[in-house]
Amino acid sequence: MILIVHAHPYPSRSRATHALLRAAMTLPDVTVHSLYERYPDFDIDIAVEQSALSQADLTVWLHPLYWYSMPGLMKHYIDKVLALGWAYGSARANGANGQADETATAGRALHGKHCLWAPSTGGDIEAYSAAGVHGHSFDSLSMPIEMTARFCGMFWQPPFVLHGAHSVSDDELTLKTAEFKQRLQDWSATHVSKAALS
Amino acid sequence: MILIVHAHPYPSRSRATHALLRAAMTLPDVTVHSLYERYPDFDIDIAVEQSALSQADLTVWLHPLYWYSMPGLMKHYIDKVLALGWAYGSARANGANGQADETATAGRALHGKHCLWAPSTGGDIEAYSAAGVHGHSFDSLSMPIEMTARFCGMFWQPPFVLHGAHSVSDDELTLKTAEFKQRLQDWSATHVSKAALS
Repeated sequence: MILIVHAHPYPSRSRATHALLRAAMTLPDVTVHSLYERYPDFDIDIAVEQSALSQADLTVWLHPLYWYSMPGLMKHYIDKVLALGWAYGSARANGANGQADETATAGRALHGKHCLWAPSTGGDIEAYSAAGVHGHSFDSLSMPIEMTARFCGMFWQPPFVLHGAHSVSDDELTLKTAEFKQRLQDWSATHVSKAALS
Repeated sequence: MILIVHAHPYPSRSRATHALLRAAMTLPDVTVHSLYERYPDFDIDIAVEQSALSQADLTVWLHPLYWYSMPGLMKHYIDKVLALGWAYGSARANGANGQADETATAGRALHGKHCLWAPSTGGDIEAYSAAGVHGHSFDSLSMPIEMTARFCGMFWQPPFVLHGAHSVSDDELTLKTAEFKQRLQDWSATHVSKAALS
């Protein structure tokens, strides 16, 4: 099962992310959790979200990039749902999360699962370079997100990034949307065949 | 004026961050905005927060590190308060924030101000290296936070990082706290003398 964790603070202004979401929803075995619809008051149901993650083999983080990261509600979701003793271990001195405590058991709920990050950016890819307005490559700026997944033992997939979300033409968006859908289908095909062989 | 934007989701469990905060509050011209106290429902008063930032010459971001970044509420604060047309310009294709639109005016409210990032981490500094559990240097993981300040035209100060927040001894914490207070005093002294000369 594929779980898409979708976070757009202003869904009515979402064009690119919404197009990717719509395409993904035509596939079987795709579940969508749209955080801003589910939790407009930021009161996240941790048990429900952990259960959904447990059932998923691939989790997709789909959102527009906000300040080189995920939107605030999605960060809050990460803080709450990827809890110590559930998503990561109890090694107190090494915890990624400041709230580590000593009574936790080893958390391996996400170990071995796959994570695909799918952000959209307003800026073109040229903006993400040493000479560009953001001064760094997109890969270097996205490191905290990648490390979040890896720290939970997830297999990090090559991100699916849609740059220039505001300026992309309808035709380009159609192509990109098809590419996204294909990525998910390819993942499912590989995953199913592996499962069949084992 | 120094504005400390303080964010700790669990203030009662805060030892290191709280010690730094207490020390800073003994200084004159320090204002503290504790986000989790002010906005337990995540309903940020944007006008009030922008006004406070406008009055500050130095803004300090003081928080425990959560998943290689700031806690969820503080990320929400950044998304809301550092608004297009206020904190950064209107160049649509280059916006750091996905919500860029075409009608904005150039935002320079924070241009020329100073920003000091003061995170505490559960992990020791050794954890933040190629060989450590987090696989990367602290500097490389903190790039999105630095770029957020820089994108708003703020002068980025060398961060004040308190590693090993859970394991630091009382004596070490006392030293670190004094060091933090001195950093703020030194900044004030430099800033005041510069103003007096101009």
